[in-house]
Amino acid sequence: MTFEPQDPRFDARVRASFDGQHVMHTIGARLTGVAPGTSEIALPFRADLTQQHGFLHAGIVTMLLDNACGYAALSLMAPEAAVLTVEFKVNFLAPALGRRLVATGRVLKPGKTLTVCTSEAVMEGEAGAKLVATMLATLMAVSERPDVASGV
Amino acid sequence: MTFEPQDPRFDARVRASFDGQHVMHTIGARLTGVAPGTSEIALPFRADLTQQHGFLHAGIVTMLLDNACGYAALSLMAPEAAVLTVEFKVNFLAPALGRRLVATGRVLKPGKTLTVCTSEAVMEGEAGAKLVATMLATLMAVSERPDVASGV
Amino acid sequence: MTFEPQDPRFDARVRASFDGQHVMHTIGARLTGVAPGTSEIALPFRADLTQQHGFLHAGIVTMLLDNACGYAALSLMAPEAAVLTVEFKVNFLAPALGRRLVATGRVLKPGKTLTVCTSEAVMEGEAGAKLVATMLATLMAVSERPDVASGV
Amino acid sequence: MTFEPQDPRFDARVRASFDGQHVMHTIGARLTGVAPGTSEIALPFRADLTQQHGFLHAGIVTMLLDNACGYAALSLMAPEAAVLTVEFKVNFLAPALGRRLVATGRVLKPGKTLTVCTSEAVMEGEAGAKLVATMLATLMAVSERPDVASGV
Repeated sequence: MTFEPQDPRFDARVRASFDGQHVMHTIGARLTGVAPGTSEIALPFRADLTQQHGFLHAGIVTMLLDNACGYAALSLMAPEAAVLTVEFKVNFLAPALGRRLVATGRVLKPGKTLTVCTSEAVMEGEAGAKLVATMLATLMAVSERPDVASGV
Repeated sequence: MTFEPQDPRFDARVRASFDGQHVMHTIGARLTGVAPGTSEIALPFRADLTQQHGFLHAGIVTMLLDNACGYAALSLMAPEAAVLTVEFKVNFLAPALGRRLVATGRVLKPGKTLTVCTSEAVMEGEAGAKLVATMLATLMAVSERPDVASGV
Repeated sequence: MTFEPQDPRFDARVRASFDGQHVMHTIGARLTGVAPGTSEIALPFRADLTQQHGFLHAGIVTMLLDNACGYAALSLMAPEAAVLTVEFKVNFLAPALGRRLVATGRVLKPGKTLTVCTSEAVMEGEAGAKLVATMLATLMAVSERPDVASGV
Repeated sequence: MTFEPQDPRFDARVRASFDGQHVMHTIGARLTGVAPGTSEIALPFRADLTQQHGFLHAGIVTMLLDNACGYAALSLMAPEAAVLTVEFKVNFLAPALGRRLVATGRVLKPGKTLTVCTSEAVMEGEAGAKLVATMLATLMAVSERPDVASGV
């Protein structure tokens, strides 16, 4: 499905928001792509982000999935809107062990208030790429500084 | 509801697993409580864990909620079991802005293979404590090093 | 937690909405309670609502859980608002086999646009009552005939 | 993605299970397709299955989505296995109003114990077909009569 952005400067707006997320710098994640209704975020594997089995923690994987959904949604929102995560659900499918984690988000249904997105996290490694987790999320457009917690 | 632990040394086992999570050290989280069927994890607010509005990122809040569920589940599992997160859903209710985030998890239904848990994250601040997010999660007991990604 | 209803006639409004649901008559469910921020719905067990093992189908259990959340939310909404289900997640904990299924919903966080609710379904039988499923849901207030599908 | 069925008679097994669901007969739903890792279920619109706005109730839509996931999962399971719904999450995207609702399920990740599936419900009408809801679900293989409630 293709979408028309409401804001011709969506790309700059998404990048500015991502740059404003201190935690992305802290963990070393980068926004590697954005287009109307989609976004991609990548994180090189780091041992200081792992859980007790040496895999990236579910919370780290979720952080990328959430941002991939949030910025896919923001790319279609009106120029003055900010985006909030209302809720998400994640299924974990394989260990997040490898060289680089890449999360890709896309809009399933845009809306004036609510946008529904899905995202997938793939781990790249020596044996190729493997799907490690998938998210189904609800995002909300807000017109000012939000009063609801969110990743985006 | 009260539960009987299968493993009398559940407390030591949960603490050892938590200590093995590098990412908990990285973000500065601590396991502040564990009892049969419940656990509590706390994180002092840090600006380097925030998203673009200055709140703790949804992924950070989720990391605490996931561990609170996972260790509540592990506290009731057999001595040789490890615990994996199968999936979770989180609703975000208020901005994660304050002094200290505390996540409390509890088992709703233990099982030989699957355990269902819920957790809540409360932000403590000058104006008291505020519920910021809630999780409903499915955890799995595995008898060896897991082949499914997980936070716990 | 106690809530103040915005509409003093919330009880009549909830009952009228429930009565307008043809499917509740079809399956034989009744609204057995409503108070500010909570509601209760009951369904006598019927063999024509079962799946292949003779339990009430997950979709039937979900129908009650969804209505319990939706009417808990509606009880706190403004007089002119209608309520829609944005999304929900359900965990199934035990077989829905017994005499009568009772779903109880309550509001976790009311909001002008979005309300977050939880509900539980308990099966009553000869051996007492047993928790069979739990829901975490997001509901939306709309001011006119909705353009989003919903159970409520 | 294509999958190899473990049971060459998967088609007959899925159809027999579906036929054993009394509630499918009650609402008038039919299994319209099954292949390794996918299934399709259709329901002609009926006014006696609606909520207060005249749309199919969210619980009815969920019933089809759940079965579409469950039978997609069952098609890949071992001959002696039965399938249970552990949990699901549904987002509602548009009103379930039209002529015929069609739910299509597919396996994202099969497993010996757990299988993760997604399904979509499309409403067919005079103006074409419209996506009304999407599900992300966890299913479980059990080797005997299940002790967990499920739609499938």
